Amino acid sequence: MTAPGSRMRAEIHEQPEAIQATLETATPMVRDLADRLRREGVEYVLIVARGTSDNAALYGLYMFGAVTMKLAATAAPSLLTCYDTQINLRKTFVLGVSQSGKATDVIEVLEAGRERGALTCALTNTSDSPICTAAEHVLLTHAHEETAVAATKTYTTALVVLHQLATLWAERQDLADQAQRVPERLHETLRLEPDIIDHAERFRFMETCHWLARGLNFCTAKEAALKMAECCYVVPSPFSTADFMHGPIATTSFGFPCFFVNPLGRTYAAVGEVVAAVEAQGAEIIMLSNADDMLQRARIALRLPDLPEECSPMAAAVVGQLLALYIALEKGLDPDQPRGLHKVTQTL
Amino acid sequence: MTAPGSRMRAEIHEQPEAIQATLETATPMVRDLADRLRREGVEYVLIVARGTSDNAALYGLYMFGAVTMKLAATAAPSLLTCYDTQINLRKTFVLGVSQSGKATDVIEVLEAGRERGALTCALTNTSDSPICTAAEHVLLTHAHEETAVAATKTYTTALVVLHQLATLWAERQDLADQAQRVPERLHETLRLEPDIIDHAERFRFMETCHWLARGLNFCTAKEAALKMAECCYVVPSPFSTADFMHGPIATTSFGFPCFFVNPLGRTYAAVGEVVAAVEAQGAEIIMLSNADDMLQRARIALRLPDLPEECSPMAAAVVGQLLALYIALEKGLDPDQPRGLHKVTQTL
Repeated sequence: MTAPGSRMRAEIHEQPEAIQATLETATPMVRDLADRLRREGVEYVLIVARGTSDNAALYGLYMFGAVTMKLAATAAPSLLTCYDTQINLRKTFVLGVSQSGKATDVIEVLEAGRERGALTCALTNTSDSPICTAAEHVLLTHAHEETAVAATKTYTTALVVLHQLATLWAERQDLADQAQRVPERLHETLRLEPDIIDHAERFRFMETCHWLARGLNFCTAKEAALKMAECCYVVPSPFSTADFMHGPIATTSFGFPCFFVNPLGRTYAAVGEVVAAVEAQGAEIIMLSNADDMLQRARIALRLPDLPEECSPMAAAVVGQLLALYIALEKGLDPDQPRGLHKVTQTL
Repeated sequence: MTAPGSRMRAEIHEQPEAIQATLETATPMVRDLADRLRREGVEYVLIVARGTSDNAALYGLYMFGAVTMKLAATAAPSLLTCYDTQINLRKTFVLGVSQSGKATDVIEVLEAGRERGALTCALTNTSDSPICTAAEHVLLTHAHEETAVAATKTYTTALVVLHQLATLWAERQDLADQAQRVPERLHETLRLEPDIIDHAERFRFMETCHWLARGLNFCTAKEAALKMAECCYVVPSPFSTADFMHGPIATTSFGFPCFFVNPLGRTYAAVGEVVAAVEAQGAEIIMLSNADDMLQRARIALRLPDLPEECSPMAAAVVGQLLALYIALEKGLDPDQPRGLHKVTQTL
């Protein structure tokens, strides 16, 4: 019997080392795959995943689009598993993401992709899992076993592999090298822990909140909201700030908690406009940013380390994990064992 | 000064006629475009939209995938508007959806698509709007002016145009013809109104809820949740039932309201399993279905008309609209004028 949240906490703190190990072990394999993708003139990327891995897929979608300049989509597995669609997938790269390697629908999409001429790859933390035989290529994160139900280190290590794949496919060694700084910056991020412990009590009775970001950090908003759903039973309401303005902003009453992820980068100004809009409604702003201007406007300011925008989701994810962990403990919940969830979920 | 919700109510009731008119006026144009898409061997579909139109885009994504068998993705506009991505779009069909025709980011993606060799099309309710000059093809819904902020008839008429495009592109005249039955079935659906008025009071203090569906009706879950966000200020939490099982189900405490959209069709059994899972948690089930078995298991049963699965989202959307309208009125809100929203939202 371990203390509530102790496994999740340990795994959160393992992330700098796990990312370091993943960079060392996965990058050579990533380079080979990137060479092949370029050689074969692959034009389209289809990513398939569920849960936390689907948020990693969302990061991949933006990286393949913004850096590799390929049309990337996340797949709807039901098209293949329920509707039995026969889609031609030549010139397409089908990437399945599953930390456990056992997501049945992800495996089925990889198998269908392989049959229909796609170049297939599995991204997983589990080297002897079924997903590894379903795909032609395998990329492994090096996070060791993850035992808390809420995924943490398998998420950030998946991000770093996707970062390497997108940048090396684009032959952007300069961008690829920037990931080397992530482990050290994550140590810095983890030092926010005492601060987050101090703030957690404020959210004891929070039942819902918005998580808002855009572009490369949209995945952070979705992943932090998912962590809060799993660990704190807070109803998740994550949005791209652009979509948020088209309707959901109406739900933001006075004092409503709005968590923003807005580090410096190409969506910084656009997100800033939405910060101003919810400020005008009297919302409570909790800000994850490395920009003084953003931090000064927040009720609670959580400073992100200085990292290039492409790497910022790795550090921002850690802040979301710590918030979910300590708010869960404040609510008397055990984030290692959320109700109704198991480490491996199988859907078809 | 009109009574609260009266414009939205009028527009909800205009839908059978608007769909009839749209089928008559748009289908010949759709047929020409479908012929061209087939002739030019277009392989990929990229749909770009915001808000309600983005939910119509989601319907298109499943229809183009399941019926037309093309790889379809919804675009992240920020890739072009913020990240300035240069993606090759030959052999790609870029479809922009905007009822007002003024969504700046949608227009920008269409223009970028045209520059990069895509076949472009605007789907709009406004014939003289900027989107019509941005795209090579224009498909018009025939819903007349929509004045309530919450979109209703422009949504269902967009669905019917997408239905026609996907089925005719696939040369499935048999499926295309099924849409002819929709106007009559919508009259039947609208007769649920007194029943929904009776039930609305129950939700007077509902602050959040899940909307759950899968496949072709995932768009219905998202659109109904968006309507409840806009009109009732209920924090929206829509999920594909498969994604829901990977984490968010943890938020479903005893008595939590779960709205299901589960008509007979290829995802019926998979959604049924999730109904059983939340039943086991003691959730309150509100069921939109045409299957007796599903309706019997619900606290509140709302019978959908008998329509083929491909057309069911049009009827299910109407039920979502009526729920949003009457719950808003019960809460003392005016769904014609939600706080912080305007009929046209511009984001970049």
